[in-house]
Amino acid sequence: MGRPVILTVALNAALDVTYRLDRPVTPHATHRVTDVTHAAGGKALNTARILHTLREPVIATGLLGGHTGERVAALLPAGLRHSFTKVAAESRRAVVVADPDDATGFWEPGPHVTRDEWRRFLDRYTALAKPSRVVVLSGSLPPGLPVDTYATLVHAARRAGAYTILDCDGPSLHAALPERPDLVKPNATELAEAMPHLDTTGTSGTREAAEALRAAGAGAVVASRGPAGLVAVTGDGHWRATPARPETGNPTGAGDASVAGLAHGVAHRLPWPRRLRGAAALSAASVRAPIAGRVDVRDYLRLRSTIHVEEL
Amino acid sequence: MGRPVILTVALNAALDVTYRLDRPVTPHATHRVTDVTHAAGGKALNTARILHTLREPVIATGLLGGHTGERVAALLPAGLRHSFTKVAAESRRAVVVADPDDATGFWEPGPHVTRDEWRRFLDRYTALAKPSRVVVLSGSLPPGLPVDTYATLVHAARRAGAYTILDCDGPSLHAALPERPDLVKPNATELAEAMPHLDTTGTSGTREAAEALRAAGAGAVVASRGPAGLVAVTGDGHWRATPARPETGNPTGAGDASVAGLAHGVAHRLPWPRRLRGAAALSAASVRAPIAGRVDVRDYLRLRSTIHVEEL
Repeated sequence: MGRPVILTVALNAALDVTYRLDRPVTPHATHRVTDVTHAAGGKALNTARILHTLREPVIATGLLGGHTGERVAALLPAGLRHSFTKVAAESRRAVVVADPDDATGFWEPGPHVTRDEWRRFLDRYTALAKPSRVVVLSGSLPPGLPVDTYATLVHAARRAGAYTILDCDGPSLHAALPERPDLVKPNATELAEAMPHLDTTGTSGTREAAEALRAAGAGAVVASRGPAGLVAVTGDGHWRATPARPETGNPTGAGDASVAGLAHGVAHRLPWPRRLRGAAALSAASVRAPIAGRVDVRDYLRLRSTIHVEEL
Repeated sequence: MGRPVILTVALNAALDVTYRLDRPVTPHATHRVTDVTHAAGGKALNTARILHTLREPVIATGLLGGHTGERVAALLPAGLRHSFTKVAAESRRAVVVADPDDATGFWEPGPHVTRDEWRRFLDRYTALAKPSRVVVLSGSLPPGLPVDTYATLVHAARRAGAYTILDCDGPSLHAALPERPDLVKPNATELAEAMPHLDTTGTSGTREAAEALRAAGAGAVVASRGPAGLVAVTGDGHWRATPARPETGNPTGAGDASVAGLAHGVAHRLPWPRRLRGAAALSAASVRAPIAGRVDVRDYLRLRSTIHVEEL
């Protein structure tokens, strides 16, 4: 076996479109956009981009549709390997209107995926999973794919011998747990929604909810808690990773950065405390970066030494 | 000479994108779009579409860029003749977010047009203007074109022997007036902005401002005043055209419908009162239509007989 390879799966990749305005968004008015920028978006592509920034051998796969999908592929960083299945319908756009105060988002629903397109993707995915050490499954499902889509992909990755990291929420997450994904990474909101009968606030509530997810099938759970860092509940022990101080900036994509850190740690078979240290540092570095889902490697290396990891 | 031909010029054609939401637009929140629709947009294409609906021989020209431009051309009605110059940059999108209460608009700035692209367009335009009886110039200019762009196009149309109808505002309008466009169609807001030292409210103020535009170079002025109808100030006389009752509906594109009516009336050399009757009826029919810039021909024919035209 060669170097460890991480496969990221973007089933509902997006063209991230940012509209800049001179004035605040006003409902039911018209606004002249002063500047338009495009980027390849969606959770799995954010994770792939950060792994590529760390010079990890990563392959991005998933579904891309129409001209919008071609544009997403063209906007991936040079040298990032990818192998997407084309679908006929257009990939979605995720429009962020950035005014002087804050951002307002409009998410298109994504392309309808046909059965034939899905079968072609599944063949490609199975072939790509075989030589991979880690498979990262993250983000929403486009219309037309069944709720157990991630269950199918977790099952296929397990048969191919790959470690699976799953970052999704709601019915998709519940449907996938019986297939025993190796690692699940909910944020605080997703954890509360997944375990509505539990009080998930605070470290002990987070632990209890994470244990419930493990009982439902997850091999390990790493809960991301924004500026409070990460809580890991695994078969090998429980840990908490906390940044020295909360970073200010753009929290969008911080979860995707922590997934990149976890995938990197798993691929290199690092012990849990080192995985968590890297994941928390990437998350904090991503908050500092001006563009969502990016990191400056120098920030990451500097922040890594400031993360406090403790066994619970 | 065959049947009269109307040439419409769309320099900043748009892909009109409508996002439907289940809930009201909330600044600085994220919104899931439930439905996305696309249409060919921009003032000149609205006018061209309505003339085509009336079975007038119309040719749509202008600039289209990139995949967005190709999509605009593909969305024109079947049978509508068009002859666009391609530009390398992407045509703009005009995003309308339609929530249960009302609509919120975000207008992209449009493609940068190079000098070479402009020269190629100008050759095409000059050739198309020669056999045309009427040239309709309407809408905003994309970045990269100088403020006297419409002045250049009015001049070239006059040399080609065509009647020019100009529907633009601000510096573009002021720069074009010395080239003596045959007909200028400002709305109430544009008229007030063009003549800031005049009180343009009411019929007499509208007439005074329109006379000032004629003194600056316009051959005739037809001011559109929303539900109050049209006021025409021409070398042949002054008229007012008023609908029997105000229509309720979507006023977007009503001005483009009145331009279609004026172009039709000029092309067929109808007397002014008949031009105005048709223009006011198309405007009212457009307000009734569920989609901006469309008319139902039956509405138009029915409303035409209800328009009250009087000499002032």
